Amino acid sequence: MRLRRENSLLLIVDLQERLLPVIDGGDQAVAEAAWLGGVAQALEVPLWLTEQYPAGLGGSDPRLLEGPGEHQCWQKVHFDAHAEPAFAEALAGSGRHQVVLCGAEAHICVLQTGLGLLEAGYEVAWLTEATVSRRAAEAELARRRLERAGAWAVSADMVAYEWLERCDDARFEDVHRRFLRQRSARPLRFY
Amino acid sequence: MRLRRENSLLLIVDLQERLLPVIDGGDQAVAEAAWLGGVAQALEVPLWLTEQYPAGLGGSDPRLLEGPGEHQCWQKVHFDAHAEPAFAEALAGSGRHQVVLCGAEAHICVLQTGLGLLEAGYEVAWLTEATVSRRAAEAELARRRLERAGAWAVSADMVAYEWLERCDDARFEDVHRRFLRQRSARPLRFY
Amino acid sequence: MRLRRENSLLLIVDLQERLLPVIDGGDQAVAEAAWLGGVAQALEVPLWLTEQYPAGLGGSDPRLLEGPGEHQCWQKVHFDAHAEPAFAEALAGSGRHQVVLCGAEAHICVLQTGLGLLEAGYEVAWLTEATVSRRAAEAELARRRLERAGAWAVSADMVAYEWLERCDDARFEDVHRRFLRQRSARPLRFY
Amino acid sequence: MRLRRENSLLLIVDLQERLLPVIDGGDQAVAEAAWLGGVAQALEVPLWLTEQYPAGLGGSDPRLLEGPGEHQCWQKVHFDAHAEPAFAEALAGSGRHQVVLCGAEAHICVLQTGLGLLEAGYEVAWLTEATVSRRAAEAELARRRLERAGAWAVSADMVAYEWLERCDDARFEDVHRRFLRQRSARPLRFY
Repeated sequence: MRLRRENSLLLIVDLQERLLPVIDGGDQAVAEAAWLGGVAQALEVPLWLTEQYPAGLGGSDPRLLEGPGEHQCWQKVHFDAHAEPAFAEALAGSGRHQVVLCGAEAHICVLQTGLGLLEAGYEVAWLTEATVSRRAAEAELARRRLERAGAWAVSADMVAYEWLERCDDARFEDVHRRFLRQRSARPLRFY
Repeated sequence: MRLRRENSLLLIVDLQERLLPVIDGGDQAVAEAAWLGGVAQALEVPLWLTEQYPAGLGGSDPRLLEGPGEHQCWQKVHFDAHAEPAFAEALAGSGRHQVVLCGAEAHICVLQTGLGLLEAGYEVAWLTEATVSRRAAEAELARRRLERAGAWAVSADMVAYEWLERCDDARFEDVHRRFLRQRSARPLRFY
Repeated sequence: MRLRRENSLLLIVDLQERLLPVIDGGDQAVAEAAWLGGVAQALEVPLWLTEQYPAGLGGSDPRLLEGPGEHQCWQKVHFDAHAEPAFAEALAGSGRHQVVLCGAEAHICVLQTGLGLLEAGYEVAWLTEATVSRRAAEAELARRRLERAGAWAVSADMVAYEWLERCDDARFEDVHRRFLRQRSARPLRFY
Repeated sequence: MRLRRENSLLLIVDLQERLLPVIDGGDQAVAEAAWLGGVAQALEVPLWLTEQYPAGLGGSDPRLLEGPGEHQCWQKVHFDAHAEPAFAEALAGSGRHQVVLCGAEAHICVLQTGLGLLEAGYEVAWLTEATVSRRAAEAELARRRLERAGAWAVSADMVAYEWLERCDDARFEDVHRRFLRQRSARPLRFY
């Protein structure tokens, strides 16, 4: 499986304000998800978010909504987002069959959503550094289980370069300047 | 594979009084198994236990039997519980085809029981934190081998939320209040 | 895959006197292989050893030859023992199709022998604590590669209890008294 | 999968002078790749290198070009070398279907090249100690992903001994004297 920007959708699960403080690595997960969200918007990859019971857990972390491009937000009561008919229908209608998945908790809502997507025939990439649980060991267990079920563990950098494919066009120039360069302590032009 | 409460059975293998003192992590395994045993009873998932040669190794740890609901206990001489005809027959008659497996020793009786169940066509989930051996490394080796054979490594939390599916009904309200809330140092309502 | 004593053969690869001093964990590997060699002889599982270029690397470690039962020794020039026609023919004639494999170096002769056995249709179990290389990381890489190719990583304890199957016969009584009991700092009768 | 010298080609990806200083383990990767490059030339296994945007990232590290034998160098703008038509055509024409792959960055150009090779039907071996990224964890993630896609993780030693097969011919004598012996602090003749 190789990610293509024209087939991809980025799905951020339940990175909500009142849940994040108890999550191991929650802050870094938000930063990583927000960074890839920016890349997604630059490349016209749809950016979707889910929120579980927002009356109790709060809304999505505001850093995830700062990008200049569009995003779409879904509320849910099932832990598996794909068990919500409106979500499933909209996803099928999006024409995208590769879902880059991240969020919290890895072993509950992200895992169950991933299983739902795989059962429905989507390709699923698990964004390792942005998928977290209260206990880090449980996030790793969830990742291994979803890999077994067919998902692919990826990093944000991996995804960005796969969406870009080559280094000699204006698209790369733009994303490199706004997103890739800032990621390296010792930046390298065109890489 | 996704666990459904109507298809599941929880099987606790040989967590016996005279065996537990030599087991690395034995005490935590009992606590974890007892906790999920309570959830199972609340959701009408059958709770079964096995005991290997109880005249020598003692009975099941009493914490496993404290739940208000029913449980069933099986004595065995084969390391693989499924090699005991009465057990195999009762399991086939239970109508449950997903076995959540835990106990001791991971690399002997739990492993062989898991292999027996997989060979007989059951789906098997390996409850990671409640499946233990004298040497922890040997428990990990057993888990990896049973995963290779077709089992799924899970955590108790994962199982509970898969059995529950959604957060907006009375079932979730009850299990959250009695079991889920106590698990988090900083409890989150409805999660 | 489950090991059965009537189908198994234990193959110890190149645990030779002038090679062992440079091997990380070589001494423990010999002890572990010798222990399972004793169990094998008690259960009439054939015990075979190979030696690579013994004029240069010395003979097999004498601890491997101390058991009261029979063993068979093979010299070879191919790193893959199964590439030696006499060995391959004798193995086919043994009627055993499950090979429990251990020795040194994990990433050279054990790996290549394992690949040869798998290609020839044998089931292969990789005896983790008795399969070693100069560098431990390279032994782990070899194990992972042979698992990918179809082998199963096992421990000596795992193998012994699978060969035994049950705890209520004279066979278990004998092996428990002579081999299993000595393995636990705090021995447990019948386990 | 077993590597054969008559089927193999060694491909070193983007180990370039201005990229290497930011790579975790870059120096060891060059040494390892150069060592196996020498073995490859001794055994008439083609040695190929790629360079991404050399105007910006510099040429290949000179240690990679020091061997007495031939090598071939390819410039590219796609992160996936196999997406360059000239490269893909030359590789198809080489008659080699097993590619031993290494280089930097593991999770960008090596990964994408590996995916391209696997999609095109080649067997791919991932040379673990010579495949590196700025962040080591990201190199490991890339290795696991390419293994999932069908590649095999190997070490340089593993590859050399598989290419050699046996220890009793002049080929082994030559490679042992020039390459294998120097790798062990305590060298062993014929091993």
